[in-house]
Amino acid sequence: MRILPSLIVVAGLVAAMPAAAQDLAKGAAAVRDKALADSTGWDVVESLTTEIGPRPIGSPAMQRARDWGVATLKRLGFENVHVEPFTTNAWSRGAESAAVVGPWPQKLAILGIGGSAPTPPGGITAPIALFTSYQAMIDQPVGSLAGKIAVVTQKMPRNQDGSGYGYVGVQRRAGPVEAAKRGAVGYMIRSLSTDDTRLPHTGAGAAAGIPAAALSTVDAELLEHMVARGQPVTVHLEMASSVNPKADAWNVVGEIKGSEKPDEVIVVGGHLDSWDPGTGAIDDGAGVAITTAAAKMAGSMGRPKRTIRVVMWGSEEQEGSGAAYAAAHKDEAAKIIVAGESDLGADRIYSLSLPPPAYAHDAMKAFRASLAPLKVVVLPSPPRQGGSDIAGLIGLKVPFVDFNQDASRYFDLHHSADDTLDKIDPASLAQTVAVWASFLYTVANSDVDFRPKPAP
Amino acid sequence: MRILPSLIVVAGLVAAMPAAAQDLAKGAAAVRDKALADSTGWDVVESLTTEIGPRPIGSPAMQRARDWGVATLKRLGFENVHVEPFTTNAWSRGAESAAVVGPWPQKLAILGIGGSAPTPPGGITAPIALFTSYQAMIDQPVGSLAGKIAVVTQKMPRNQDGSGYGYVGVQRRAGPVEAAKRGAVGYMIRSLSTDDTRLPHTGAGAAAGIPAAALSTVDAELLEHMVARGQPVTVHLEMASSVNPKADAWNVVGEIKGSEKPDEVIVVGGHLDSWDPGTGAIDDGAGVAITTAAAKMAGSMGRPKRTIRVVMWGSEEQEGSGAAYAAAHKDEAAKIIVAGESDLGADRIYSLSLPPPAYAHDAMKAFRASLAPLKVVVLPSPPRQGGSDIAGLIGLKVPFVDFNQDASRYFDLHHSADDTLDKIDPASLAQTVAVWASFLYTVANSDVDFRPKPAP
Repeated sequence: MRILPSLIVVAGLVAAMPAAAQDLAKGAAAVRDKALADSTGWDVVESLTTEIGPRPIGSPAMQRARDWGVATLKRLGFENVHVEPFTTNAWSRGAESAAVVGPWPQKLAILGIGGSAPTPPGGITAPIALFTSYQAMIDQPVGSLAGKIAVVTQKMPRNQDGSGYGYVGVQRRAGPVEAAKRGAVGYMIRSLSTDDTRLPHTGAGAAAGIPAAALSTVDAELLEHMVARGQPVTVHLEMASSVNPKADAWNVVGEIKGSEKPDEVIVVGGHLDSWDPGTGAIDDGAGVAITTAAAKMAGSMGRPKRTIRVVMWGSEEQEGSGAAYAAAHKDEAAKIIVAGESDLGADRIYSLSLPPPAYAHDAMKAFRASLAPLKVVVLPSPPRQGGSDIAGLIGLKVPFVDFNQDASRYFDLHHSADDTLDKIDPASLAQTVAVWASFLYTVANSDVDFRPKPAP
Repeated sequence: MRILPSLIVVAGLVAAMPAAAQDLAKGAAAVRDKALADSTGWDVVESLTTEIGPRPIGSPAMQRARDWGVATLKRLGFENVHVEPFTTNAWSRGAESAAVVGPWPQKLAILGIGGSAPTPPGGITAPIALFTSYQAMIDQPVGSLAGKIAVVTQKMPRNQDGSGYGYVGVQRRAGPVEAAKRGAVGYMIRSLSTDDTRLPHTGAGAAAGIPAAALSTVDAELLEHMVARGQPVTVHLEMASSVNPKADAWNVVGEIKGSEKPDEVIVVGGHLDSWDPGTGAIDDGAGVAITTAAAKMAGSMGRPKRTIRVVMWGSEEQEGSGAAYAAAHKDEAAKIIVAGESDLGADRIYSLSLPPPAYAHDAMKAFRASLAPLKVVVLPSPPRQGGSDIAGLIGLKVPFVDFNQDASRYFDLHHSADDTLDKIDPASLAQTVAVWASFLYTVANSDVDFRPKPAP
């Protein structure tokens, strides 16, 4: 007979607990193992990427995605399946092209940054002013970039926690405004990416009244090679886009109703919208799939005591769905036990943070015991991020968790044509489902409370 | 004092040789070490990719590349720099797009295959017939694909010697004709590539009178997922292209004239033309750079006894330059000592084959001794491939060599937008230059003869 070491550890922890806690721990382990062997997560993201594909807010595909979400939740047995409509600002890409016109004519691979202004018909042609760091552009005086296309080519570091993205993100988000302030007639950045393919990576930026585009990392380096020759480099940029300030959008919701305390709700989800170049597999078909599959697994052991609610948020990339959700649910906020968003791809969870007040509760002991074979570090620090779709709930003092997925290769793919199903490893995806499923199961079948106790 | 093991080995081999052979061996080692420390190879490919970029045959860029080649060879001190004009068939890409129109509308990333017919204006729309192996399509009876777009999604294996490309190559080269024969109105293949990016890979195919395109590997898998659902999948394909059957083309030539036997010539080179999506860095800016730099290094020890000739062949991708070169030089063929082409990227040479008659000659002993620190296996088998631009010379019984570069990642990049400078590792590039330089030096400064001796 062969006993897995991880099972011995779990058995040891379980033996030290009271009977109800032992039941929870056994259930958590069972839910975990069920999730590891189950294909629901993969099936959901395969279906979404194959049958819908890219689904930017304001597009017909996003309407199809809404219907897909309703049908999927119903098919998987969720209750109270419905859509919660709202309106939001939607920037839509038109035809885009860029090329060096002199001294060494070559095409450049670009994608417009969300919020970019269109160029006049026929485009603009201007010399570039290239900065290898964002700070170097910020250091330029107001007006000094008049008539130029400002180009920032700062590189993004590759880190497991994805912190490189936050670090260089300012050059996409605020950069267009800062370039315009200094007189630039256009703005281009090296894509916020760790890849070396000739595929640019888009994303949202602040509307600045000038055209703004992301170059592939390859094209950013090509411009650096040209500029190093010491001659002025001239670029032609042609971009179309449109804006609908009141685009229809929807959060799609399904529940597993609690048997004992149905008004106590756990809210989890991913976002249904995506950028347009890829099929939105890792951002965020995976998050939709992980949380949907986890809820199904958590509910598969018999109806839970509390309600588990899955939300497919409908406008994360250009914002709107988190605020709309919080506004619609503010009266319910005090009864939301905890919220979580899965929005960092499909690679495995390597660490997580729980709200400290509940750390020692039997339910969290059971949850933590179930993590041993999944190789997840439970951090001593409190959660810090949550996710943009639950930021509104966090603002309403709803407790939240951080389940940290390995983002080492996430930014090779994110917001580019390479965000596709083939990049998802089914085993890694199943690991994330197992973590979320065990969490949902233990919280939904206990009285764990993540809110700080009032001082006595 | 610290003696490198590789130097001890070389010193041992050298000590066992006669004096002239010792000089050759010392010279070969010196040329090798000079090449390892020299940046000429990198500088040449950096210049070509930055200042010219993509250079398909028949394009204005190819004319600029010709002038760049002449200027580069002159700048590096080559003699008798000239162009040898010829005409050849040139297929040129126009606007191209493809999309699934039903049941699940999505755009597809494609590149036309060279030789493809254009679609009628407005494109064609037809159901696809998908085959996961080429043989499965070949097994269909004539006429059975009437009205359909045939799709072959066979995968290319990743091998160090690049043999996967030869293995699946038939689906791009002959596939369009075979599909047309069976009645197909269009033809698409999974790109001949080992990558997983959403960038398609082009290449030449036989003209078949139907539109033919390569899907990115990602899009080939997307179609497989759709077809697996059991419903007919309909694709819209729109492709433009033009053909110039007598496009101007040029082989660009430079020499280092031999001091003792100037009419005995060693011919080496790469090809100057490239496909259009990338900047032609690995295919074949690298080959141009490697052989040009190697010749310069081999000639840097004093004028060689024989002539070293570098040829930048002008139309490899769509053929023409090898045949034109052989036709123009057939009277000289008996005096061409050996020919070699570098056309498999910029990664290191891991093995090589020499024509057996000269294997034991002192010059080849000196060459082989110089390879020890470069980690190159000298194979016991004779050369088999040569390269398409020297195939014409090989047909004229000119001896040739195979210097085998590691192609493990070559087909991630080849014929796609990802064929760019940033993919070249300068240290690997320098290793290849060192191998070629030592070979050119030892052959040019000896009387080694690679032709079989007549039977006595």
